[in-house]
Amino acid sequence: MIAFEERIASLKKAGKKTGHDAFLVTSEKNMRYFAGFSTSSADRFAGIVIPVETGVPTVIVPKLEETKAKKSPLKEIRTYSDSQSPAPLLNKAIRDLRLQKASIGIEGTLPFKFYQMLSAASPKTTMEDASNLFSQLRCVKSEQELRMIEKAASIVAEGIKAGTEFTKPGVTELTISTQIERAIKETGGESVPFCLVLSGPNSALPHGETSKRKVNEKDIVLMDVGALYEGYCGDLTRTIFVGEPTRKQKEVYGVVARAQEAAIKLVKPSTKAEEVDAAARRVIQKAGYGQYFTHRTGHGLGLEVHEEPYIVKGNKATLKPGMAFTIEPGIYFFEDFGIRIEDNIAVSQNNGKLLSHLSKELTVV
Amino acid sequence: MIAFEERIASLKKAGKKTGHDAFLVTSEKNMRYFAGFSTSSADRFAGIVIPVETGVPTVIVPKLEETKAKKSPLKEIRTYSDSQSPAPLLNKAIRDLRLQKASIGIEGTLPFKFYQMLSAASPKTTMEDASNLFSQLRCVKSEQELRMIEKAASIVAEGIKAGTEFTKPGVTELTISTQIERAIKETGGESVPFCLVLSGPNSALPHGETSKRKVNEKDIVLMDVGALYEGYCGDLTRTIFVGEPTRKQKEVYGVVARAQEAAIKLVKPSTKAEEVDAAARRVIQKAGYGQYFTHRTGHGLGLEVHEEPYIVKGNKATLKPGMAFTIEPGIYFFEDFGIRIEDNIAVSQNNGKLLSHLSKELTVV
Repeated sequence: MIAFEERIASLKKAGKKTGHDAFLVTSEKNMRYFAGFSTSSADRFAGIVIPVETGVPTVIVPKLEETKAKKSPLKEIRTYSDSQSPAPLLNKAIRDLRLQKASIGIEGTLPFKFYQMLSAASPKTTMEDASNLFSQLRCVKSEQELRMIEKAASIVAEGIKAGTEFTKPGVTELTISTQIERAIKETGGESVPFCLVLSGPNSALPHGETSKRKVNEKDIVLMDVGALYEGYCGDLTRTIFVGEPTRKQKEVYGVVARAQEAAIKLVKPSTKAEEVDAAARRVIQKAGYGQYFTHRTGHGLGLEVHEEPYIVKGNKATLKPGMAFTIEPGIYFFEDFGIRIEDNIAVSQNNGKLLSHLSKELTVV
Repeated sequence: MIAFEERIASLKKAGKKTGHDAFLVTSEKNMRYFAGFSTSSADRFAGIVIPVETGVPTVIVPKLEETKAKKSPLKEIRTYSDSQSPAPLLNKAIRDLRLQKASIGIEGTLPFKFYQMLSAASPKTTMEDASNLFSQLRCVKSEQELRMIEKAASIVAEGIKAGTEFTKPGVTELTISTQIERAIKETGGESVPFCLVLSGPNSALPHGETSKRKVNEKDIVLMDVGALYEGYCGDLTRTIFVGEPTRKQKEVYGVVARAQEAAIKLVKPSTKAEEVDAAARRVIQKAGYGQYFTHRTGHGLGLEVHEEPYIVKGNKATLKPGMAFTIEPGIYFFEDFGIRIEDNIAVSQNNGKLLSHLSKELTVV
């Protein structure tokens, strides 16, 4: 059982510190985090008013989402039909919870039209973007959450294995990607938010797109794949060789692997996020490839594919036990080839604990 | 070449009528509509300020999206790096375009954090949700747009054919769905926003999800599939039979087909959207199944899977040449079976013109 009550208690505690009287949770991910369900319609308003001291959390959802909402541990659920507006329900919840003059923490993603509805329903409340507070709460994971990320990462690993087995000269990036997705779904992956297969010179484009390009002899194939398990995300990259790599490719692969290892070694409570980035960067710079490592070293993982903590220069936040993120250095030679190796790691009490367990030995198919 | 200039001219013309001095376009679909590109990052602000009379459209995008933006016909492009805020650029654009006290039409989907940034950058402008105006413009399609929807529908048809061929007792919904997706990508589909395969009693759930359920002898298999081509959406449903249908299933299939035919016949300029819905509903009610047709008859299609015009009771909007939408009546017997047939149609000068061309003969595999 997920500890929704604890999560709500932590939010209330944070609210007392920051002076919020209540929060309005509206994003899919945060609704899932605090109440175990989310709604699929972006057009219809759905949200949870969570008062800090004046009552119980109140869920407002479209009638057609009521069944989902009832699976939530929250008991106060109010619904409106397609021919009604949610505004009166919102207004009533605010009155019931005595929030008419409250300071309400909302999400930065709340669509303008719903912000406007809330303002009209309750003109004396003040609304503030409390997104940072939500991401601070969410970035420290429970044991259970870490197990889900680990499971998601193991599902991605099965996908990449299937993609590796399928790779040979003549097959297209798209077909490899289809094999990966199929393996992920067969292994229990809920969905595949992205499944990049980049071959030959395409591997040098960190934001390239899977295409119909056929894999050639002597190509590099880079696979960057995400999968969800129980809503949590795993995200791995492996780069493999079709036929023997050149001397330079071998060397670069080794540099990237060592850079990743150096970053992994630094992961522990009290290290700063930017120090982990610097550790990977240092190895690559020393090898003379600094200018070809063009992105941050990693990003947090959880209900979202990208969340706090970002492993990037300038992020002076200190790592805490329970944080989970990717470590994914890469080196890219435009119009030639690129190599990236990405794993998932959590911060434990004393050091880092890898959540992904897939060989990163140089692989030739 | 897409007529972006005409689209912007129409927006300006509409703005003059509604009293807007400018518009701020921020959603992926509307940016694509007016400028031919969209940005992929939801976190970073991207938008186009389109003044009605005081200057040229001004694009503001993150530096890393500059290459994309430069492919747009719009020439005034301003970028900010990850270490900068977009607020000063927005402020400058507003001053350059003399919009400091303007009434600006924004989108209802604009995230609160960006609304706040805009308010702070320009405290004397007033902002209004102009979403309806945007959807009114977009719901009448050009010949070129209709051709893209027709092409998307033909790609979906190839997917459904592949799914039909693959269907037999023992295969799972998920594997059928993978075959459909593969065929769509191989036929040139850009992406597959949804690919529902519902078998046996699952076919009775209009919002069911593709599962690992194995198809049995005597099952019904319902396939509801969407695909994008050049950003435009096709959306078809076919329901097929594994082995001979029962007498009741055959009868119900015929009723749904006749209901769809009746709705299609009514499509022409000056018919009201709700009349098309009523035509399909009447056939199903007469057959005694009215209570089992639990959803609207259709929805508009374009850059979005669901957009105006909605073919639903209460929508008194009159159909106009160039509108495109689905016609998809269905009958659902809970825990037993469901049947839906969905095609895509455009309003022509005198009547309706089908955009999808896939047999709807009762199919037994």
